[in-house]
Amino acid sequence: MSSCKLTYFDFEALAEAIRFLLHYGKIQFEDIRVNFEKDWPTYPKDNLPLRQLPILEIDGKIFYQTIAICRYLAKKVGLAGSTPLEDYEIDNAVDNLNDFRARLAGAYYEQNAVAKEEKLKIAINETVPFFLDKLEAIAQQNDGHFALKRFTWADVYFTGMRRYLAKLVGSEDLTVNYPNLRKVAENTESAPGIKEWVTRRPDTFY
Amino acid sequence: MSSCKLTYFDFEALAEAIRFLLHYGKIQFEDIRVNFEKDWPTYPKDNLPLRQLPILEIDGKIFYQTIAICRYLAKKVGLAGSTPLEDYEIDNAVDNLNDFRARLAGAYYEQNAVAKEEKLKIAINETVPFFLDKLEAIAQQNDGHFALKRFTWADVYFTGMRRYLAKLVGSEDLTVNYPNLRKVAENTESAPGIKEWVTRRPDTFY
Repeated sequence: MSSCKLTYFDFEALAEAIRFLLHYGKIQFEDIRVNFEKDWPTYPKDNLPLRQLPILEIDGKIFYQTIAICRYLAKKVGLAGSTPLEDYEIDNAVDNLNDFRARLAGAYYEQNAVAKEEKLKIAINETVPFFLDKLEAIAQQNDGHFALKRFTWADVYFTGMRRYLAKLVGSEDLTVNYPNLRKVAENTESAPGIKEWVTRRPDTFY
Repeated sequence: MSSCKLTYFDFEALAEAIRFLLHYGKIQFEDIRVNFEKDWPTYPKDNLPLRQLPILEIDGKIFYQTIAICRYLAKKVGLAGSTPLEDYEIDNAVDNLNDFRARLAGAYYEQNAVAKEEKLKIAINETVPFFLDKLEAIAQQNDGHFALKRFTWADVYFTGMRRYLAKLVGSEDLTVNYPNLRKVAENTESAPGIKEWVTRRPDTFY
């Protein structure tokens, strides 16, 4: 990868797992950040495949879709499975996390004020405890990981997104009462490359 | 796979791509269908990992998350990529399709009547043409496929879900004016195993 450029907002949110994987793999990249309030309204979106960020440009080729990018990078940096069944276990965990994200985002970004209030109530009272209990049980079965009892890109995907997930429902940290989810995050944030990045990354809203 | 059981509603929707892959791979399976109106309200949901269907049980192990299941089966039946980059191309196409599905579903299943009307309008007037144009261009570049200019599980995922996608926005068939999307569906529905299944499958709402 002679040229690698990540373009996203000045948030962790959806792109932080990509940043983690690049740092873990010691892949040099330009970390281009678009200010959401100042620059995004006038950003040339027609150049973006789905008019959305993040995009990752490797040697001129545009990669998009966060999860597909993460899976691709994970194979490159050794954080994927080694059999179809191992990969399924990781994919399953990632899709659980993505379902969780989508439900919280569905409430947070709801445009209709009445519907938003209804949805946030369900998100906080039902979705959050349901998914956290489920994810905690999976992390417990896997000794502080989401799959295969070892460090995989499912752990990276969660840890990159956890502040975002919390902010979507007005919390600072959803893992407080979930020791195994904390372990997932601690394991990830102490991995080589990621550890150094976490100490020096910019402090953003989420 | 000595024992294989798929449990879903009596719909094509999210499970039809799984059925297609199993038929394509000549994998015998029980096609268990839960009636959504009559049986689902009293179905023992605590036995389901996310209280949702579909689930696929192979030799006693429960697989869930439709896309993760499809990717796993695709590797087993020879419809995945053969390099990380090839797999990325397929995954990207599948995630595009899943984004399209999620946006239409977000409108269709909206509980708040006012918000639902607003969302269906956006879905029909903006989301549908935006994604269909995008998907059509990708299918054209790939000679009637979604990736790699050959038949992959991205084609199967789309074709299994296409009646569902149409019904979500009150259409019978979204591919009418999109010749390359029609090709994707025709190529898939003429594949060995899938062809036979399509002629004899039950006629369901979607």
